[in-house]
Parts: sequence; C-alpha cells; structure tokens
Amino acid sequence: MEKFVEQALLYDFYGELLTEHQKRIYEDVVFNDLSLSEVAEQQKISRQGVHDLIKRCDRSLRDYEAKLGLIRKFEETRRLVGEIHRLAREFDAGGDASCVKKIEQISEQIGEL
Amino acid sequence: MEKFVEQALLYDFYGELLTEHQKRIYEDVVFNDLSLSEVAEQQKISRQGVHDLIKRCDRSLRDYEAKLGLIRKFEETRRLVGEIHRLAREFDAGGDASCVKKIEQISEQIGEL
Repeated sequence: MEKFVEQALLYDFYGELLTEHQKRIYEDVVFNDLSLSEVAEQQKISRQGVHDLIKRCDRSLRDYEAKLGLIRKFEETRRLVGEIHRLAREFDAGGDASCVKKIEQISEQIGEL
Repeated sequence: MEKFVEQALLYDFYGELLTEHQKRIYEDVVFNDLSLSEVAEQQKISRQGVHDLIKRCDRSLRDYEAKLGLIRKFEETRRLVGEIHRLAREFDAGGDASCVKKIEQISEQIGEL
C-alpha cells in the first residue's frame, strides 16, 4: 500500500488513541504537508524531535492494527458488501435468482468475519 | 447492556491492547469465574489489587470504545447485513424484486457507515 494511504487509513481508525500533542503534529506533517522545520519552529522543539515523533506515531498506529486487525476486517467487510451491491444491481438489470442466492451466501460469510 | 455481555464485547474488540498481566487476571476473574481471593493468591497481590486492576481494565476498554466507536460501527453493520440476509431469504421464498431493491439500498447504506 502506498505510504500516505496507509497512514491516512491507520490514522482514521486509530488516530484518536494518540495524544492531542501527537495528533496536532502528525496532522500538520502528514496531512497538511507542513515541513518538519516549520512544525519544529511552531512547537518550539527540534526538527529531529518532530521527525522522531512522527516515526513513533507511525509505529503506534501500526501496532494497534497488528493487535486489533480492525482495518483488515473492515476492508474485507467492505469488499463483500460491494459484491452484494454489484449482485443486486445485476439482478435489477435482468439477472436471475442465482444472484440473490449468492447475496444470501455472502451475507452469511460477513456474519462469520 | 448486561455488564458481562458488555465486558465480553469490549474485551473481544480491545483486549489485545491490555498488557499480558492485565489480560491474564481479567480473563481469570471475568471469564473463568475465579474469585478475587483466588486470583490474588495466585498472583501474589492483594485482593484489593485485583479488584482495582479489573476496574482499571474496564475503564480502559470503555475509553477505547469511546474514542474509536468500533463496536458501535460493527454492530450497526451486522444489523444491516442481517437485514440483507433476511431479504435474500424472503426473495427465495417467493418474495418479489422489491426485496432485491432494498438489498441494493442497504448495501449502499453500509458503504456510508
């Protein structure tokens, strides 16, 4: 996965578990595209300090996913729901009852995730 | 929600964020039904210590849910997927195309959660 996409997804799921200080700096660097030096000056810490904080946040966010695996589960659910949506539309467009049979199976599969 | 059910659900989602020590004691007391005194003796800590640890774990688990809200999201998804499953079976049992139309709508709704 592209690094930025991974960071955005991890932050979306687990960002609330970072401290306010970490969140502010992480957002400025990763999402608002401020340079390390700009943030360092704003926050009155060293450029290296900002760099380390981002690294540490990345590691925390990845640890949360390694432990909880909620993104993986969520993505799998989303994929299967997308498949249900596709099948419902296929049926609308003249597909036969086998589409609905498949929907039934997929909805059971989601229940088991 | 009944307290035990709430604890089981919270632990299922966020238990991995507790330490090994906390997990062992929490499981013994909450799920394996050992008494505080039994666990206190096994772990060589006071009965009050075990009691406080359980309280602290309960609070942490609830805090995680308050911050991330993943159980709420997950339960809502599960409810809607159950609805899809019911509609697919209704169609199988002779229901008309409106069942599938509803499935299509619900699958979009899940996508927006």
